[in-house]
Amino acid sequence: MLKFTSMAGNIFGTLFRLTTFGESHGDAIGGVIDGCPPGFKIDLQQVQKEMARRKPGQSAIVTQRKEADQVRILSGIFEGITTGTPIGFVIENTNQKSKDYDHNKDAYRPSHADYTYDQKYGFRDFRGGGRSSARETACRVAAGAIARQLIPQVEIVAYTAAVGEISLKETYPAIDLSKAEENPVRCPDPEIARQMEAYIRDIRSQGDTVGGIVECVIKNVPAGWGEPVFDKLHAQLGKAMLSINAVKGFEYGSGFEGTRMKGSEHNDRFNPDGSTQTNYSGGIQGGISNGMDIRFRVAFKPVATIMQKQPTITKDGQQVIMQGKGRHDPCVVPRAVPIVEAMAALVLADNYLLQESNRVAARSSDATPNS
Amino acid sequence: MLKFTSMAGNIFGTLFRLTTFGESHGDAIGGVIDGCPPGFKIDLQQVQKEMARRKPGQSAIVTQRKEADQVRILSGIFEGITTGTPIGFVIENTNQKSKDYDHNKDAYRPSHADYTYDQKYGFRDFRGGGRSSARETACRVAAGAIARQLIPQVEIVAYTAAVGEISLKETYPAIDLSKAEENPVRCPDPEIARQMEAYIRDIRSQGDTVGGIVECVIKNVPAGWGEPVFDKLHAQLGKAMLSINAVKGFEYGSGFEGTRMKGSEHNDRFNPDGSTQTNYSGGIQGGISNGMDIRFRVAFKPVATIMQKQPTITKDGQQVIMQGKGRHDPCVVPRAVPIVEAMAALVLADNYLLQESNRVAARSSDATPNS
Amino acid sequence: MLKFTSMAGNIFGTLFRLTTFGESHGDAIGGVIDGCPPGFKIDLQQVQKEMARRKPGQSAIVTQRKEADQVRILSGIFEGITTGTPIGFVIENTNQKSKDYDHNKDAYRPSHADYTYDQKYGFRDFRGGGRSSARETACRVAAGAIARQLIPQVEIVAYTAAVGEISLKETYPAIDLSKAEENPVRCPDPEIARQMEAYIRDIRSQGDTVGGIVECVIKNVPAGWGEPVFDKLHAQLGKAMLSINAVKGFEYGSGFEGTRMKGSEHNDRFNPDGSTQTNYSGGIQGGISNGMDIRFRVAFKPVATIMQKQPTITKDGQQVIMQGKGRHDPCVVPRAVPIVEAMAALVLADNYLLQESNRVAARSSDATPNS
Amino acid sequence: MLKFTSMAGNIFGTLFRLTTFGESHGDAIGGVIDGCPPGFKIDLQQVQKEMARRKPGQSAIVTQRKEADQVRILSGIFEGITTGTPIGFVIENTNQKSKDYDHNKDAYRPSHADYTYDQKYGFRDFRGGGRSSARETACRVAAGAIARQLIPQVEIVAYTAAVGEISLKETYPAIDLSKAEENPVRCPDPEIARQMEAYIRDIRSQGDTVGGIVECVIKNVPAGWGEPVFDKLHAQLGKAMLSINAVKGFEYGSGFEGTRMKGSEHNDRFNPDGSTQTNYSGGIQGGISNGMDIRFRVAFKPVATIMQKQPTITKDGQQVIMQGKGRHDPCVVPRAVPIVEAMAALVLADNYLLQESNRVAARSSDATPNS
Repeated sequence: MLKFTSMAGNIFGTLFRLTTFGESHGDAIGGVIDGCPPGFKIDLQQVQKEMARRKPGQSAIVTQRKEADQVRILSGIFEGITTGTPIGFVIENTNQKSKDYDHNKDAYRPSHADYTYDQKYGFRDFRGGGRSSARETACRVAAGAIARQLIPQVEIVAYTAAVGEISLKETYPAIDLSKAEENPVRCPDPEIARQMEAYIRDIRSQGDTVGGIVECVIKNVPAGWGEPVFDKLHAQLGKAMLSINAVKGFEYGSGFEGTRMKGSEHNDRFNPDGSTQTNYSGGIQGGISNGMDIRFRVAFKPVATIMQKQPTITKDGQQVIMQGKGRHDPCVVPRAVPIVEAMAALVLADNYLLQESNRVAARSSDATPNS
Repeated sequence: MLKFTSMAGNIFGTLFRLTTFGESHGDAIGGVIDGCPPGFKIDLQQVQKEMARRKPGQSAIVTQRKEADQVRILSGIFEGITTGTPIGFVIENTNQKSKDYDHNKDAYRPSHADYTYDQKYGFRDFRGGGRSSARETACRVAAGAIARQLIPQVEIVAYTAAVGEISLKETYPAIDLSKAEENPVRCPDPEIARQMEAYIRDIRSQGDTVGGIVECVIKNVPAGWGEPVFDKLHAQLGKAMLSINAVKGFEYGSGFEGTRMKGSEHNDRFNPDGSTQTNYSGGIQGGISNGMDIRFRVAFKPVATIMQKQPTITKDGQQVIMQGKGRHDPCVVPRAVPIVEAMAALVLADNYLLQESNRVAARSSDATPNS
Repeated sequence: MLKFTSMAGNIFGTLFRLTTFGESHGDAIGGVIDGCPPGFKIDLQQVQKEMARRKPGQSAIVTQRKEADQVRILSGIFEGITTGTPIGFVIENTNQKSKDYDHNKDAYRPSHADYTYDQKYGFRDFRGGGRSSARETACRVAAGAIARQLIPQVEIVAYTAAVGEISLKETYPAIDLSKAEENPVRCPDPEIARQMEAYIRDIRSQGDTVGGIVECVIKNVPAGWGEPVFDKLHAQLGKAMLSINAVKGFEYGSGFEGTRMKGSEHNDRFNPDGSTQTNYSGGIQGGISNGMDIRFRVAFKPVATIMQKQPTITKDGQQVIMQGKGRHDPCVVPRAVPIVEAMAALVLADNYLLQESNRVAARSSDATPNS
Repeated sequence: MLKFTSMAGNIFGTLFRLTTFGESHGDAIGGVIDGCPPGFKIDLQQVQKEMARRKPGQSAIVTQRKEADQVRILSGIFEGITTGTPIGFVIENTNQKSKDYDHNKDAYRPSHADYTYDQKYGFRDFRGGGRSSARETACRVAAGAIARQLIPQVEIVAYTAAVGEISLKETYPAIDLSKAEENPVRCPDPEIARQMEAYIRDIRSQGDTVGGIVECVIKNVPAGWGEPVFDKLHAQLGKAMLSINAVKGFEYGSGFEGTRMKGSEHNDRFNPDGSTQTNYSGGIQGGISNGMDIRFRVAFKPVATIMQKQPTITKDGQQVIMQGKGRHDPCVVPRAVPIVEAMAALVLADNYLLQESNRVAARSSDATPNS
């Protein structure tokens, strides 16, 4: 039986809401931000700078596709200031090479979304993955770059913690995160970055790919953000990260390692000012930020498109051999760093507004509690 | 400055929506399910059976509190059949011992939600955690037990995979999951279960606690469930699991281990029928189920309440020594197993309805595509 | 072909969210309020007082059914103060006389929801209308009575403006609204109230029913509430009112009469303080409150259950004669007055929180605009 | 105190969701449709035809502004067929004459949104109303034209029923609705249309404006659409209509006139096939469509911008005289007709999908009720 299903789930957030659209090989991609408060100065060069961090072709170890990724703001920002109206934006697709994907037309790429799309929609845009393409994340980065400017005191820094077997020996705060942007891998340890870069070049020369881990540290979130039951702050962050292409896992604070600890070791002891001596909690307790650094890790699988021959099947179940073509990343992690930051920014700006929506009793002049 | 914030985020799901309410030491807890289709037979004994799996006092290695946990259905089910109207249910709190919590009144329990609640709400229900108490999860289990009966062909089995350092050597499908319910730890390997149980008894005798890992296998989900961008099926599952008390991490398929693999190893090769030879994808590709078993792992931290003396602070920043009292679990994992299953059932029933909502083109007689 | 559909749409509001459940002849009805901020004093006697205004049996001109309509609060209010957690409440059904409805079992009552429920759900609770019964509005009144206490400065007064052909000659502000509660019809003009009451008694003696109009005046809403596009304040109020049983129309400000006016007559001229000399706008311009009184009118049809013989059909299309039994209102308007107020309160409390959620730029100390 | 608020409420619909953006004098307006199922053929010429019906400059009795109103589809439709991915579209603003609005810069136009915007946002786009401009409705018409093509069997016909005091003598079904599009007023009675047109010309020559009423008839909606409590079908339609600029009232079926009737007159008697002999219910009973024609009426106030001198105030409360400039409609009703139809189409397509989402029990092969 044929089955066709619409693609829902293109809206993210509760009060600060991003809706995105666009396929990798259509005319353009874009989005709308609904709920951005007025009066905030938005530095559009900063937005473009974030786009450059995600852009293909930015270094020798990423895909060599070229996209201008110029964000055209159509509404909601006037003379550099948000007006409170929805912010519509468009990013034209300028470098589609649909021919690169002709080989996919009949066969399913293993561990891609080709098979599941066909099963769900009865339709598949074989030109680079359509909506499932990571090109969609460009809209997340654009919106995230705006979201960050609502909460300028909050510092969000992501970086590469592992590429395959090569991983940071030390971890934050023992390492200087400011060095992450100094190398194309975005790893804050220069020596390990060099090893990672060499390994990625090696993997690419084999026509293969490799996975990795992105860590993220968020400073200066005040205590009190997040909701305690279904919308715990880490649950929202987890969903945001797991919605990025190729992500297989999320952990915060002590994470999976923490399962091996005893309560007497794991409990974070308080300092008199409410800060804690350790931070196994990862800055979140009971789903609510506690004012310490928020820390989490995101696992990325190896890119599914490899430049080696692989057996696979066609839509009709015929076994065929396919070989990846096109311009793909040997390791997604360096370009994923700004995407992780952008999704974190969307979650935090939303929770900032949620928190503000209800801090009414203590400050509202026109509706004080009736005491 | 004082700040007060409401507690939002008590609604879960899009079409099959659960709203819960209730504190551990109030009169009752309960919930409403909106969006449950009519005509489904609901076995209420089955609901009560799931409640018994989560219940305190069920074995020697869990908390010895006693709660009847009797689910009283107030609406929406008539003569054992869903009517399509909202299902309201209430679970009375019968065994609150607020006195057990007097010691918490002035001091913040480390790694609990006490401090963050006070920061967010300017108010804290010290009687057992209020809304942050795991008692809230009883409503999830009740609703999940109903959700499962909408998708009876889908088999959801969770089990204990690790308690502290002790973990399963083999994993599914090499182990017989049906054995998990035969021991109080809910570990499917009888020998390892015995070790885990002994370890939990030992930990308890030290007045300490320990973490662990729950694995979940979901069989017979047809290909096509889930939405491809922000609401990927695994992102929804991840959020659901991360919203359970004490969870620190979520991974599916190859998870964090998969980050070390090469694409050529990690890609799941197709069989002619569309199934795959390996299942590193964990049953989900591009956010959509592919018909293979869905598999994920959930990390639980050690319970924060320990029966040892701990230094902590009062609301005023005074340093004091506190010692846990009350009746607490030395390891949350055995009782978490049915909660993991319940949350999975809520996600899957919702995605089942979402999928059905749009399978219109192929079957609708009154609104066929206008071709 | 059989078709079964679930009953969605039992959640009302965006930040201040009410979810209701319960059928007229089940065990109980009830609801959950999610998003109520903490620290507000709630007078539960005031809630019960509102329930009494809606209650059957309150006067000689309404249905003589007796219901205690005692609201039992299960969570979210502690020592009379909201805690910020969800407020769960239950109202037991104490006086179901299902036998009164036996005559409905096989036949569709004309202009009731019997036929449409059967068409939608393939199932119908013939015991008094099930979920379509106006009993459901008891939960709206309970929640509305809580919502009002969040915005105590806002004064919401509804009253009967017309019963059948008998209507107020003058309108607010020419009439003294405080007199509305002094007579069972809830009409603020004592003489017209007497006429209405006599007319309702007459109509009842004929076994017939009659419609009417409720007007509502809302004072002291500050300028700035409401959203300008799809969620205009009057669009939200209109939806709220149209969702009440038996409502056929909604107009605000100049309403349908205003369509006959010229712009030069209809435009409200400003006073220097921003108030206006006339109020054809009804207190709302461009979907946003302007600080003037909000005024609207709600049309109620005559109650469909009449105590006369009527021809109708059975489920199988057989023509039969039926006669209404049970205890019904000859005119719904007097009891509708507190329901109109309750729905207005829910809309306004929600918009109050929405407005607060975004007034961030001017006051937030931890996230000022980055100027 | 300054206050700034974001403009939320730019998303319409539950499963078929429209998000719009754009100001009248910015670069472009546009929107995203999320939730449109795949496999539907979309006639883009039909979309453009609907745009032409709303377009300024289409006849001598409407505003003489010129806008191309060309809808550029950026995603979601491939070779004329919906793909199930979000449909992004943009309409460039080509004819902004901001200079026409210089006179508004300092003064508030009476009965416009100028004052309320300033109060809400602390900011006002004086160039033609910004987001409050009716230009925003162009996006509704574009999306509505797509929505209609999902439910091609449903026939939605709106028409002008009154302009000022001039109104149709007969009403549907006594009049031939197909004649409505034959004259610029969109009134189906040719003689009354001539009177209306003459009246509008006269009003315009006075520099004045006038209100009117649009009626809408919707045929072939099957019984069963709509949700019975808060989301009654007529409540959704009412909200949709009340969200259109200049609307002051909504009534369906017998409407306000029905309040004067007795139940014995108002009840719609059944025919053996479930249809009814009269249709005072307006095609909806208990919030759910009953298969009869859905009928409603929408009241539009006179346009606030008049070409006469009016006293008003500036932001600082100074009294000044202003005179409307720019190119405005003397009566909004003729151009409102396609907007009413578009909003009705959005509501109906959404309810169609909602209805389908839950018709699971009777047809689903992979999740039948477990009986």
